[in-house]
Amino acid sequence: MLLQIPHHFFEKHFKFVLKTLKKLSLEQLNRLSTEEFRKSKKIPLVLVLDDIRSLHNIGAAFRTADAFRISQIYLCGITARPPHREIHKTALGATESVSWKYFENIEDALKKLRSDGYVIYAVEQTDKSVLLNNISCDQNKTALIVGNEVHGVSDKALEYCDLAIEIPQAGTKHSLNVSVCTGIVLWHFYINMNDLCNKI
Amino acid sequence: MLLQIPHHFFEKHFKFVLKTLKKLSLEQLNRLSTEEFRKSKKIPLVLVLDDIRSLHNIGAAFRTADAFRISQIYLCGITARPPHREIHKTALGATESVSWKYFENIEDALKKLRSDGYVIYAVEQTDKSVLLNNISCDQNKTALIVGNEVHGVSDKALEYCDLAIEIPQAGTKHSLNVSVCTGIVLWHFYINMNDLCNKI
Repeated sequence: MLLQIPHHFFEKHFKFVLKTLKKLSLEQLNRLSTEEFRKSKKIPLVLVLDDIRSLHNIGAAFRTADAFRISQIYLCGITARPPHREIHKTALGATESVSWKYFENIEDALKKLRSDGYVIYAVEQTDKSVLLNNISCDQNKTALIVGNEVHGVSDKALEYCDLAIEIPQAGTKHSLNVSVCTGIVLWHFYINMNDLCNKI
Repeated sequence: MLLQIPHHFFEKHFKFVLKTLKKLSLEQLNRLSTEEFRKSKKIPLVLVLDDIRSLHNIGAAFRTADAFRISQIYLCGITARPPHREIHKTALGATESVSWKYFENIEDALKKLRSDGYVIYAVEQTDKSVLLNNISCDQNKTALIVGNEVHGVSDKALEYCDLAIEIPQAGTKHSLNVSVCTGIVLWHFYINMNDLCNKI
């Protein structure tokens, strides 16, 4: 004999069987190893950290740079360098996968990027900023500068910029947290450049 | 007599006059006051923080919720509540503008949201997640659950979810930092819902 279960009874009592969401383990996510990451194709994006004070923000930037597989991070000025216990607490190993360079003077970093053919964008609220959602990405080599927690991108760095990008905001505060801001801008470039680069 | 300046000379020595980007002050940004924020139209989005351990992540969530003018934050389980010195250090006053409620048991929060007509999304890597860039937003009331730093969205919370959203990642690490992840997802909903809501 087949058991007949009315649809509404099933919906009410057994729907969870159909819809329950199962979390994926690290193995199921099938992430790259550090070695595979280093050899992999990257999106042509360099993140420039200009005088970042917080070790948490530096660590989070590495972790986000790893997730969105960008080419390199340039650490400039007072920005601390790995290996550092406090950076590691947030980066969780992403300082091993993501390539980085240190420049005491940001102008040296920006001159190198310019001569290497990068366009340079500041993430900063300026009198001529373009809203992030209006920024169209291409496959050109692009550098993004994120600035100090209090002072933003330095005036000497702004002189090298082709454009400033602003994340539109509708609240009471001046700006977003540096790691959140970095995450949102890298996400925008990743999702747009990645399509152009035929899926890295 | 008019002074004739050759173009290449002008380009080399005076271009900065044309292109220099000037940072905007808080006054020039013309942000809302806390009182104006409270009375303002919000995007119909509730952020649910499910057992968030880090006070930094809670503070950053408030600051991002303020920037993207979402309706409310629900703090659940072990998630700490304002006023709290460490939350304030990151939120920088956004705990005053953004409305919040506390629920000891997340199921009570989700039952309330369900009965208030919200669709409920988990931000979690599951066997049935939809990639964030494929999520189309509408004007429906939407709740987004972000979970614990180590364990993610709890299984009991997942039972109430209509859908799980995943931020696509191409790196070596399991996931993004909670405050970065929250920022990226709120940005996606803000930029899409805001257009639909005729610019809040």
